[in-house]
Amino acid sequence: MKFSIERAVLLKAVAQAQSVVERRNTIPILANVLIEAEGNNVQFRATDLDIEVVDKADAMVERAGATTVAAVTLNEIVRKLPDGALVTLTEDGVKGRLTIEAGRSNFSLATLPKEDFPVMASSDYTTNFSAPAPVLRRLFDKSKFAISTEETRYYLNGVYMHIADGEDGRALRCVATDGHRLARIDAAMPENAGDMPGVIVPRKTVGELRKLLDDDEMQIAVSVSETKVRFATPNITLTSKVIDGTFPDYTRVIPQGNTRKLEVDASDFAKAVDRVATVSSERSRAVKLSLDEDRLVLSVNAPDSGAATEELAVAYDDERLEIGFNAKYLLEIASQVDRENAVFLFNSSGDPTLMREGNDTSAVYVVMPMRV
Amino acid sequence: MKFSIERAVLLKAVAQAQSVVERRNTIPILANVLIEAEGNNVQFRATDLDIEVVDKADAMVERAGATTVAAVTLNEIVRKLPDGALVTLTEDGVKGRLTIEAGRSNFSLATLPKEDFPVMASSDYTTNFSAPAPVLRRLFDKSKFAISTEETRYYLNGVYMHIADGEDGRALRCVATDGHRLARIDAAMPENAGDMPGVIVPRKTVGELRKLLDDDEMQIAVSVSETKVRFATPNITLTSKVIDGTFPDYTRVIPQGNTRKLEVDASDFAKAVDRVATVSSERSRAVKLSLDEDRLVLSVNAPDSGAATEELAVAYDDERLEIGFNAKYLLEIASQVDRENAVFLFNSSGDPTLMREGNDTSAVYVVMPMRV
Repeated sequence: MKFSIERAVLLKAVAQAQSVVERRNTIPILANVLIEAEGNNVQFRATDLDIEVVDKADAMVERAGATTVAAVTLNEIVRKLPDGALVTLTEDGVKGRLTIEAGRSNFSLATLPKEDFPVMASSDYTTNFSAPAPVLRRLFDKSKFAISTEETRYYLNGVYMHIADGEDGRALRCVATDGHRLARIDAAMPENAGDMPGVIVPRKTVGELRKLLDDDEMQIAVSVSETKVRFATPNITLTSKVIDGTFPDYTRVIPQGNTRKLEVDASDFAKAVDRVATVSSERSRAVKLSLDEDRLVLSVNAPDSGAATEELAVAYDDERLEIGFNAKYLLEIASQVDRENAVFLFNSSGDPTLMREGNDTSAVYVVMPMRV
Repeated sequence: MKFSIERAVLLKAVAQAQSVVERRNTIPILANVLIEAEGNNVQFRATDLDIEVVDKADAMVERAGATTVAAVTLNEIVRKLPDGALVTLTEDGVKGRLTIEAGRSNFSLATLPKEDFPVMASSDYTTNFSAPAPVLRRLFDKSKFAISTEETRYYLNGVYMHIADGEDGRALRCVATDGHRLARIDAAMPENAGDMPGVIVPRKTVGELRKLLDDDEMQIAVSVSETKVRFATPNITLTSKVIDGTFPDYTRVIPQGNTRKLEVDASDFAKAVDRVATVSSERSRAVKLSLDEDRLVLSVNAPDSGAATEELAVAYDDERLEIGFNAKYLLEIASQVDRENAVFLFNSSGDPTLMREGNDTSAVYVVMPMRV
């Protein structure tokens, strides 16, 4: 194998691939990236056995071939090479070394046989559709904060992507919850997505997927089976196993009868919550909301260290209400609001509270109260 | 006690003071900042019993007084208050609470009696002089990287500031070493500094001092005794115990007879060292320098993972030499060079090597070689 490639192109492909590689590996070859050169391009493939990413880059291939080298080391070397350098990678298949040359720099890295590299079995994708990058970005960005980190509740360790009946017809929906809060985000259902099986996309996959979604003009090809999900741009293919479990029936958690409506500037609200929470101890950062006509008082009372109150002018015309929340959950939910006022719908101080942006029902959040 | 103060002024004073407070304290009052309001200003005082910092800020004092509150919490609250806010701090001395008000925000923090706050005993400073901030900045910035972190060699856990005979007459000199490398930085001796006792300024003090030295126009008042050192600007006074030990005779470590001279672009050199070191394992990042006429080859050989070589055009006209160094030490020393080429002076592959910037002898570095 021998090919030459621009440093910037190489860096982009290797950086994307190596990020799925786990830093601590008991199986040596999982620390490696599989490099395959053929025709006019080179593929870089990395996997942790659950996720596989394949990055394709243009290159001047002099001699086709394939080998594997340590992904992190290769990435570090390429990153440190001067901008604009032309990099030549050579492997003669005999010495078990890959040579990397650029200008007066010369590296040789130990290789492992390409035959040992685990290539993810292909899947029979039953659903194939296409969605604009900004649509997928919104679905995952607004839901991922609620993913559970409890390993025992493995079926909550991801975002549940499925087709549902939304307020405006059939929707591509992402839901995440950890039992304390929940996010439900809808987008118009893409063509051909109608029979998609619901899948739980793991947290790490959501993180890797995010890197494919920065380009506003990009269309993402999505393929789904019962066991796998694939997201692809022309150059990058991300394939992931989905979580083998049943996502709980979240619809029962979303309150329907909450009528006490509070409308508040989301940014002012978040800053005020952040400030009053400062005085409380780390463990139970409970913030009390006291609602009266067009008036919200946020308060925290930590007997040992101190107390804090803050008043906000809001829109509220229901009866008096006092309700407590975990400050972190309130902050995270308020920070999802980027366009309009945050609208909270309460029932009683013991019932789950609903939050949305203005009258937009395509993004709905639920948060459980705390006793204060 | 009652006073009002601009949020930005308060934040600057509190932030500076709280940074000396240790995060884990067994003595509760050491987590607090002592606030003393009198006349037209307020003093914020914090200490870890080794270092004391006093920050003075203008304020509208309505009622003089003093109290102590948790430094970190106060800093967090003030940081989160909106920019431009006027903050009022009130303590009535009865309830054991300090009230902080700004706009519609209201905080109350638990206080501890001001009488319990440990104020550092004053010292009889035998030497008092003044030095421009940029001069002190250079002395400490260029030497601190070599401070030892070995607690058993406590006398190396700081920068040795003393008066010495430099190449251009009497000098204010800072020296730091960890036994593997050494930095010796000179500045022209300030007036009245001639009889200064040599003191070892602890690592943490060097870090805190750095925050006083950003303003190029500032004159720093320096006071030194056998046991303490004090650095002061009109608003901030930093007092520190010095390390109670004897700094070793570093002059014997600085080679005098090294004649083999290598001249190299410091930035190119540092980048090349960084690149070749990528292939070696974390533990022994040994880089070999092979010198021949006007030619330097850097190489690393890590049998398990790979090898790297890089060639640099340099100025060298002595006989062939091979010498090895710890890559991290070479990088740190090369990154001290900011104006000119790095000049290395070698003796043999087993002897300490000297490095300086061009022909400037006011900053000299020594690094021990490694067997490669």
